[in-house]
Amino acid sequence: MSIEHDRTPPTISEVAEAAGVGRATVARTLGGYGSVSPRTRDRILAVARELGYRPNSLARSMTTGETRTLGVVLADVGNPFFVGVLRGLGEAARSAGYDVLVLSTDEDRNREAAAIDVLVGKQVDGIVLSPAAGRSDVVPHLDIVAKRAIPLVLLDRLVDTVEADAVVINNREASRQAVAALIARGHRRVGFVWGPVTNEPAADATDLRRIIDHALWSDGERLLGYLDALEEAGIPFDTSLVTHVLKHEPQATRAVLGMLALSDPPTAIFATETDALTGTLRAIRQRGLRCPDDISLIGFDDSSWASVMEPPISVVAQPVHQLGTLAAECLLARIAGSDSPASTHVLEANLIERQSVAEPSTLTR
Amino acid sequence: MSIEHDRTPPTISEVAEAAGVGRATVARTLGGYGSVSPRTRDRILAVARELGYRPNSLARSMTTGETRTLGVVLADVGNPFFVGVLRGLGEAARSAGYDVLVLSTDEDRNREAAAIDVLVGKQVDGIVLSPAAGRSDVVPHLDIVAKRAIPLVLLDRLVDTVEADAVVINNREASRQAVAALIARGHRRVGFVWGPVTNEPAADATDLRRIIDHALWSDGERLLGYLDALEEAGIPFDTSLVTHVLKHEPQATRAVLGMLALSDPPTAIFATETDALTGTLRAIRQRGLRCPDDISLIGFDDSSWASVMEPPISVVAQPVHQLGTLAAECLLARIAGSDSPASTHVLEANLIERQSVAEPSTLTR
Repeated sequence: MSIEHDRTPPTISEVAEAAGVGRATVARTLGGYGSVSPRTRDRILAVARELGYRPNSLARSMTTGETRTLGVVLADVGNPFFVGVLRGLGEAARSAGYDVLVLSTDEDRNREAAAIDVLVGKQVDGIVLSPAAGRSDVVPHLDIVAKRAIPLVLLDRLVDTVEADAVVINNREASRQAVAALIARGHRRVGFVWGPVTNEPAADATDLRRIIDHALWSDGERLLGYLDALEEAGIPFDTSLVTHVLKHEPQATRAVLGMLALSDPPTAIFATETDALTGTLRAIRQRGLRCPDDISLIGFDDSSWASVMEPPISVVAQPVHQLGTLAAECLLARIAGSDSPASTHVLEANLIERQSVAEPSTLTR
Repeated sequence: MSIEHDRTPPTISEVAEAAGVGRATVARTLGGYGSVSPRTRDRILAVARELGYRPNSLARSMTTGETRTLGVVLADVGNPFFVGVLRGLGEAARSAGYDVLVLSTDEDRNREAAAIDVLVGKQVDGIVLSPAAGRSDVVPHLDIVAKRAIPLVLLDRLVDTVEADAVVINNREASRQAVAALIARGHRRVGFVWGPVTNEPAADATDLRRIIDHALWSDGERLLGYLDALEEAGIPFDTSLVTHVLKHEPQATRAVLGMLALSDPPTAIFATETDALTGTLRAIRQRGLRCPDDISLIGFDDSSWASVMEPPISVVAQPVHQLGTLAAECLLARIAGSDSPASTHVLEANLIERQSVAEPSTLTR
């Protein structure tokens, strides 16, 4: 900690001399514009780094209009879904020569606004956002992004009021398929973990549809898919089988324990997030039930754990890597100047059937 | 996408007029210096945001010398360990008014160098780094950080050649305790997943100690703890019980399958990372073995999954949240001007005993 503060990086002339090339070549290399052979470029960068040169992002931005960084604002870096997306996104960005800055919001809209502020301040070339807003909410902190024409791609969730490219999955149909698979095995009492967060359970399916308007788009779509599957099978909606609690694992456990205590408990559960799945498993364990003998289970989002569990858990698997690469590609196309109309890319999730689903047991009820 | 590019944010005068305060108050508020009442500050920030004002990080940095952002360079954002650390770090940073920018390296030193470059370019006030370098390696890309006197805190791993504050756990002792717990139950053939990555297995314990010099500090310490426990119990080191493969889950599975195929296979396994644990579980499943009846197992790093597995898995749990908050606090203290000598903070990890350890079975061998 005794090293002195040094604010004098080498000049372009110093780098040029040390690398044995002309000043213009150094300027092109360090500025990231024009044409320089890869070999010469590597030598210049090595020499420049040795001399303590670091590109000043603002200075570079003034020359090229680019900082070659993408900002990514995610709801939860701990969710395996976002981890997978981030890997795909990072790979696509790096192969195009862009660095990725990540901020996490934990689904908090104030933190999302702060994160957008930071990325605008750091002059990123574009932003990928998984918004914390409900599907019909307004998002005032995105005004500055539109005003400055910073390319924006929505990830995982749509917001009606935001006109931007988006990359999502077919949540409604994927959810319908999973619930239909449970119904096809004979289940008519299917628990849904998680529904949108509300102060109290929805009174009925109509009330639920109203609530969905202000829920995260992806959550709402998954619930609509559940309703679709029930309707197809002529099963009436029972509000006591849909959770409405805060989305933390202990709340999932408590909500599922509540369902299991009903006089007519669910014989199967569809858990629509990783934390919902672990919370559900904890409730099943606490009640001493066995899966799938006593209760069937389908999760959402695959993970290494889901397939090494006893039994291995069936899940709706999202193409996480592809979601990430596609989001990066959409953003890079905008940065490169594409002015085609904003479009929504919908990828397909697939049900992976393992051993956590069986026919409902009548003996244990 | 039809909104015009607007490069003229409001002036301080415009914000002052709209907020009904003096220009100096606006300058103090937006510049982040001097004293402004919280109420006035909030009003000015709201008005400024409405008018499209965004702090320019470089301009603010020139005034205050701070950008109020911390950079965090992690080996793997997908590892539950780093997820937990990041939560603690983010909370501590935010409560001090700092934003956190995260970059992931996947243990790649070139990507780490690029990440440091980005953070230096973005003029973060300080950096937390979990270095990809081995314990006695040199890390030339940190020269610029020292030269510019950017506060740096190492997280999870020490590097002999880097003089900086560090926050780590007592890996060696935690590992010794876990292996000793297995030995105390009667195990004398204990597999270790993962050892340092090498082209071939270490010839003997001496060779292993040489290899450890260039391994990640944390990996090396865990292996030394394993050797300590063996030595205490008078059990000779057997190189075939320590993996030396790349650290990906499928490699763990393959390495454990190899151990289980030995004429004298391990009766217990200590898996020192989450991916090592899931890879080991997959190998156990593939061989049709039951845990703990046929083979005992202790993991490293706790997760929701580990405790809902059948059986619940014993693990060495790190104080992940505390590691994160402490790293942030150390960094913030340096940013605030602390010039005390660099110090290493060692937190304690604890063995959480669940149901994955039993006495070795002689019947199944």
